[in-house]
Amino acid sequence: MSSRRDTIRAAARAARRAGSALGRVSGPERRAVLLAMADALERPDLRGKVLRANAADRADADAARDRGELAQALVDRLLLDDKKLQGLCDGLRQLAGQPDPIGRVSIDRELDDGLVLRRVTCPLGVLAVVFEARPDAVPQIVGLAVRSGNGLVLKGGREAARTNAALVELLRSVLADQGFDPAAIALLEDRADVDIVLDLERDIDLVIARGSSAFVHHVQTRSRIPVLAHAEGVCHLFLHESADVAKAVRIALDAKTSYPAACNAIETLLWEEGAAPALDACLTALAEQGVELRVCPDTLARHPSLKLATENDFGREFGSLVLAVSHVPDLAGALRHIETYGSRHTEAIVAEDEDAAAEFLARVDAACVFHNASTRFADGYRFGLGAEVGISTSKLHARGPVGAEGLVTTRWLLHGDGQIAADYGPGKRRFKHRDR
Amino acid sequence: MSSRRDTIRAAARAARRAGSALGRVSGPERRAVLLAMADALERPDLRGKVLRANAADRADADAARDRGELAQALVDRLLLDDKKLQGLCDGLRQLAGQPDPIGRVSIDRELDDGLVLRRVTCPLGVLAVVFEARPDAVPQIVGLAVRSGNGLVLKGGREAARTNAALVELLRSVLADQGFDPAAIALLEDRADVDIVLDLERDIDLVIARGSSAFVHHVQTRSRIPVLAHAEGVCHLFLHESADVAKAVRIALDAKTSYPAACNAIETLLWEEGAAPALDACLTALAEQGVELRVCPDTLARHPSLKLATENDFGREFGSLVLAVSHVPDLAGALRHIETYGSRHTEAIVAEDEDAAAEFLARVDAACVFHNASTRFADGYRFGLGAEVGISTSKLHARGPVGAEGLVTTRWLLHGDGQIAADYGPGKRRFKHRDR
Repeated sequence: MSSRRDTIRAAARAARRAGSALGRVSGPERRAVLLAMADALERPDLRGKVLRANAADRADADAARDRGELAQALVDRLLLDDKKLQGLCDGLRQLAGQPDPIGRVSIDRELDDGLVLRRVTCPLGVLAVVFEARPDAVPQIVGLAVRSGNGLVLKGGREAARTNAALVELLRSVLADQGFDPAAIALLEDRADVDIVLDLERDIDLVIARGSSAFVHHVQTRSRIPVLAHAEGVCHLFLHESADVAKAVRIALDAKTSYPAACNAIETLLWEEGAAPALDACLTALAEQGVELRVCPDTLARHPSLKLATENDFGREFGSLVLAVSHVPDLAGALRHIETYGSRHTEAIVAEDEDAAAEFLARVDAACVFHNASTRFADGYRFGLGAEVGISTSKLHARGPVGAEGLVTTRWLLHGDGQIAADYGPGKRRFKHRDR
Repeated sequence: MSSRRDTIRAAARAARRAGSALGRVSGPERRAVLLAMADALERPDLRGKVLRANAADRADADAARDRGELAQALVDRLLLDDKKLQGLCDGLRQLAGQPDPIGRVSIDRELDDGLVLRRVTCPLGVLAVVFEARPDAVPQIVGLAVRSGNGLVLKGGREAARTNAALVELLRSVLADQGFDPAAIALLEDRADVDIVLDLERDIDLVIARGSSAFVHHVQTRSRIPVLAHAEGVCHLFLHESADVAKAVRIALDAKTSYPAACNAIETLLWEEGAAPALDACLTALAEQGVELRVCPDTLARHPSLKLATENDFGREFGSLVLAVSHVPDLAGALRHIETYGSRHTEAIVAEDEDAAAEFLARVDAACVFHNASTRFADGYRFGLGAEVGISTSKLHARGPVGAEGLVTTRWLLHGDGQIAADYGPGKRRFKHRDR
């Protein structure tokens, strides 16, 4: 254990050194690495290796499923095919086209003559990413780490071990070809390694957790390092009395049924009295799509054939074709319901009344607040971030979809000519604080 | 205990509601509150009440000190006099003059025709500030909370209970006069209240801890809420071989002796061979000012009368007139020493060689990195932030001196006209991602 800890710490430190070289080169040089990675993933020989590794992982997984040891959903998530790999290539090229997140100056201020302060973005240092089955996370996360000049320690799911290893080998060889130390990316293999990683406070700057809610929660509870968690999404759609019926139906269907397992899918539909026509149309359309509706007593009074919800159905992430429905007295009631039950991820209103929409957008405390648009737009790619490490429901550092910009920090750089603080103050020199 | 918990939670929720009203009004309205607070602190009758409360606290503290129950340093920190109050008024007015941190748009992007995304700053919600003796923290922190539109739960030191209560009463009455609910600011009194506050994950968004290292560490360990900690500063000054001797001496003296207890004072002086003349001059000047020097064997060889440092003296925050001194082989050696022993607070180089300075500034991983300037400039007021809640050595969210800008978060606001995510993708509509 202690020697394993030493090995992992050494890998994290090597990732810091090698990553810092990525952070110091120019934006175009980092961009070239991303483009070369996309090219490599398109080369038939290299892609073939990845696909063969994936086939081997899937054969084992199929066998495990047949023995009843692995769920089919997990087996499905393992799959990496030409279409998915092509999507990853496109993603890397998009990321290469994004503005450079490093070296941005957000404050440039003369404190006094010849005493110049700048606040400049820089890499965080070393990211540790722990994720479950999905191997397509590897190129995305490596791409984001390279773009943001960070070293990377990766720990993927055991079921995808061969695929992850093949992907990391390919991506590391591109780093080496481009003149960088491949130690910038380290891959860990053992499940027990996760807990060791979460203890390396001085060697890892940010932990990114992707996977099931239970897995993410374990990481959050266990880690002494800040965690960027792709956590629970309990999203609501509120039908205002001014809601356009057709828009309400389109949005409700998309938000619930286009990908029910997504964190940006809705779990609860809220409606006020004047929105009854929109409600009726939504419930009919949702039921036709096979959505199970669990409704409050007021909704039940209007739709007696539906199932009565329990208190436990509100504030719950179903992650499937189940939707809770609640009547609220008015906009203020919708805001109270969302404040009580929401997870501060994404909340939406359907309304033609601009004042009502403005009030909803001003008052809801969530990472994303939408008007007349599906909650499913809450996504790094759709937002134009190029890629995302996840959608953060934490309010600090980065909120909502987090791209490369969320993987940097700032430093305050001060250039002087021998100035000392004791020369400033009442009756002495005064600061000029001139922004440039 | 449980009923105390309910009381505190109710206060935090009231602070959220009342604070959110502050967050929704215009910047000038929040600014007017700060100016009215400064005016109130200048009114002789109101100021008199605060001074009398402080005199009572100090009388008790003096008695406790005489009984050997309280350190003199703590008694000293209690003092609030006309000069300090005037400084606080000036600080509030400066803060009022700062740009508004709320409602800043950092991304304004058309995802598609009629589908507009903006990322906008907004208040965090409720801040809990736990701090030790110094009552002058109260108006500063209240000012920052008002500026950033946040509700506030304050817990000060027991020794300053009357002073804190008088200050909060004054500031709350200004809030009421300006048409705001004074519940935006809540003052807790019991030591046991701190641990209750640290458990209120859903009701408090950020904990700010100010006080001794031990106190701050307790809060960090105990809290389930993110903590902005004004933590340890182990700062270094490196004398490069190109160092100007006079600048080196000025900076070393200021950085060590102007306020040795400050977190931005230096704890270790590093020098390379070619900087020996600068070293000699610094050590002579520091010794004349009563600084105890604890030196490495190489330094001892040059200055045999000094005291040999132990390994324990490096990476240590003395907080007093003690300075460790170490020879390093070169700039790279200085970087290694800082990486090993520094607390990532503030690091400085004295050098006339611009290339060496540029390398130091590029490579040191710390909140503040300075060239030819005293580490004592690392301060919110000196940086022109108007005020600070503390100097964060964490890399996430806010780094270095943290002003009102560090007390906000962002929300992603999306305005559409019924758009749904399923309409976009390969073979369907494409996002435009046009920044405006």
